[in-house]
Amino acid sequence: MAQKAAKNLEKLKQTKPLVHNITNFVVMNYTANALLACGASPVMAHAQEEVEEMVSFAGALVLNIGTLTPYWIDSMLKAGRRANEANIPIILDPVGSGATKLRTDSAKRLLDELTIAVVRGNASEVLSLAHQDSRTKGVDSIHSVEDAADAAVILAKELGTTLAITGAVDLITDGNITYRVSNGHEMMGYVTGTGCTATVIIGAFLTVDSNPVEAATTALSYFGLAGETAAENADAPGTFQIALLDALYSIDKNQLEEGAKIKIQ
Amino acid sequence: MAQKAAKNLEKLKQTKPLVHNITNFVVMNYTANALLACGASPVMAHAQEEVEEMVSFAGALVLNIGTLTPYWIDSMLKAGRRANEANIPIILDPVGSGATKLRTDSAKRLLDELTIAVVRGNASEVLSLAHQDSRTKGVDSIHSVEDAADAAVILAKELGTTLAITGAVDLITDGNITYRVSNGHEMMGYVTGTGCTATVIIGAFLTVDSNPVEAATTALSYFGLAGETAAENADAPGTFQIALLDALYSIDKNQLEEGAKIKIQ
Amino acid sequence: MAQKAAKNLEKLKQTKPLVHNITNFVVMNYTANALLACGASPVMAHAQEEVEEMVSFAGALVLNIGTLTPYWIDSMLKAGRRANEANIPIILDPVGSGATKLRTDSAKRLLDELTIAVVRGNASEVLSLAHQDSRTKGVDSIHSVEDAADAAVILAKELGTTLAITGAVDLITDGNITYRVSNGHEMMGYVTGTGCTATVIIGAFLTVDSNPVEAATTALSYFGLAGETAAENADAPGTFQIALLDALYSIDKNQLEEGAKIKIQ
Repeated sequence: MAQKAAKNLEKLKQTKPLVHNITNFVVMNYTANALLACGASPVMAHAQEEVEEMVSFAGALVLNIGTLTPYWIDSMLKAGRRANEANIPIILDPVGSGATKLRTDSAKRLLDELTIAVVRGNASEVLSLAHQDSRTKGVDSIHSVEDAADAAVILAKELGTTLAITGAVDLITDGNITYRVSNGHEMMGYVTGTGCTATVIIGAFLTVDSNPVEAATTALSYFGLAGETAAENADAPGTFQIALLDALYSIDKNQLEEGAKIKIQ
Repeated sequence: MAQKAAKNLEKLKQTKPLVHNITNFVVMNYTANALLACGASPVMAHAQEEVEEMVSFAGALVLNIGTLTPYWIDSMLKAGRRANEANIPIILDPVGSGATKLRTDSAKRLLDELTIAVVRGNASEVLSLAHQDSRTKGVDSIHSVEDAADAAVILAKELGTTLAITGAVDLITDGNITYRVSNGHEMMGYVTGTGCTATVIIGAFLTVDSNPVEAATTALSYFGLAGETAAENADAPGTFQIALLDALYSIDKNQLEEGAKIKIQ
Repeated sequence: MAQKAAKNLEKLKQTKPLVHNITNFVVMNYTANALLACGASPVMAHAQEEVEEMVSFAGALVLNIGTLTPYWIDSMLKAGRRANEANIPIILDPVGSGATKLRTDSAKRLLDELTIAVVRGNASEVLSLAHQDSRTKGVDSIHSVEDAADAAVILAKELGTTLAITGAVDLITDGNITYRVSNGHEMMGYVTGTGCTATVIIGAFLTVDSNPVEAATTALSYFGLAGETAAENADAPGTFQIALLDALYSIDKNQLEEGAKIKIQ
């Protein structure tokens, strides 16, 4: 899988794919810069009059509910339906799902009405997407990381999507195959939107890798390695957030092949 | 008060409180990063369907009218009423109050309908909040910093809140007790949203200090010291804005106790 | 023209003009910081209740359709009409015009209903603004940079405005006189919103130079030189975006006079 990561990164830098983002206000600038740094071309567009037209030029669609309102969710649904028709992969970041009813309901609605290639979130966000009966079966009784992993496998099958749960170790599963990525650095938790940035990089990798589990796994390995690289030269979060963009730009395929820490379960 | 500052900073880093922001588009990313750097946990949410639910998880609510529309003011009122019911402190940043009728009216409405712990702004923003008759009494005839101070004391009593007027020297008063903070650096004026950042840091300090005058005073001392620290290694505003985040992260309680420049009037 | 550039920069740093921006969410923070760094004072305001009042305090109005919705376009029209009445120069950035119908139609509507001093975009954005019949005459048959230049001259006359087409070499024309600016650095393409930043700096220069062609030409020379300066100390886009703000702040009139690479056609 380290070789696949290197190959995906190389393809990305060659193809410079357009990634259409309907995302939150907090991270728009940073995630656009992250996409540029890794070789992709970002566009942010949310008006209902244009999202269908815009997404048809894109290689992937990123949906992020971080500062959602019902208008934005409707835009996401419009863009998402068109993306589905055109076989453009969608990645969903259910920011804050589980925290408020609006977020949980909106994330579930997007999953119900659209075919989503990958969902990227932290454990509580992702596991909040379970239906009530599967929650009875497992999600409500999570006592450890391994419980979360088991619940994620069940949930991925139920939802028919790939789940990428990021944390100290990232877990990526489609219910059949599960990878773990141990790249990353704790300083990433001190920069707003690093989760959202992981999401857009998975989006970029989906444009060059039609296997969602492998796209997500390799993307998270690359992003985590960028975090490790950034931390070598930065011990505080301002400097680190800038070094992280630099690392996304500078890491080449050989460094990624060597640095990727991916395990199949 | 320097000891109190150190104690507040330490508590903040221990408790990692959630700060709910309904704020402007320009500063969302930077203020989120500033909150993370000083140990708090930011959330931005403005949808009327969720603000009441979201604010109930928070230790403080930040209201900032920098890119207001009537929808956003209504969201602020909804979140603010719930915050008041739950005794969650609110800090208001009346960006541009006095410049347009929408801003002045909106800031006054928030003050009228909500119990606000602290208002943070520059002198003209804060003093624009005076009612017409108190303006006749003093605010309209300000010729010096000392006039502004006198007007602020009167206005704080009238509004029943704490006013934090930031400038070369910050003035914090609830009408009874007044502090001045002379920490800070002129380079802060070359970074957009440093005023708004001062506001969110006061918000964070309000979660650990129930005395609004002391929370605001100690927070501004910490933020100003971060500005001084950043300026030691940065002589241009790009580098400075990053160094400022680094300093918020790096300054410890001993440095703050030693560096705080707070005077009681 | 290098002398004029130096003179404009000096005036800008002396007058600290207010620049009112109705712009996109992605670049609000960065362009505000760029305006501060070059000596101007930014304000972002888009509510229909206040844009007319706000723009009347400003020395220039920046309209940028990067994350447009119909509401925002209506705000731009309101602010623009008032700016026209008060002879406040307007610069339009037609982000993505030509890509979606909403963007093309909105950009054209702004041009039809307002008097615009300068339009700044890349070649495809700017040339998408041609009416159908002028397109038949030239815009649709562009095979080279020189074809684009010829089309721009025709289009500038037709629209009665100054066009600033940025790229490896920038072309600025009002249909009668044409300048080319060869300052700049390829790393600028790896930072989101550098085009939008070029736009706001032209906006700032319009406050001190009533000749739109010369304001745009000198502003682009200054911004390009800042890019060159930033690249001396930065070889990756995170560091570069910060160094670019530093350079905007640090470049003085003598450096600009010496470094400007402007040719009249």
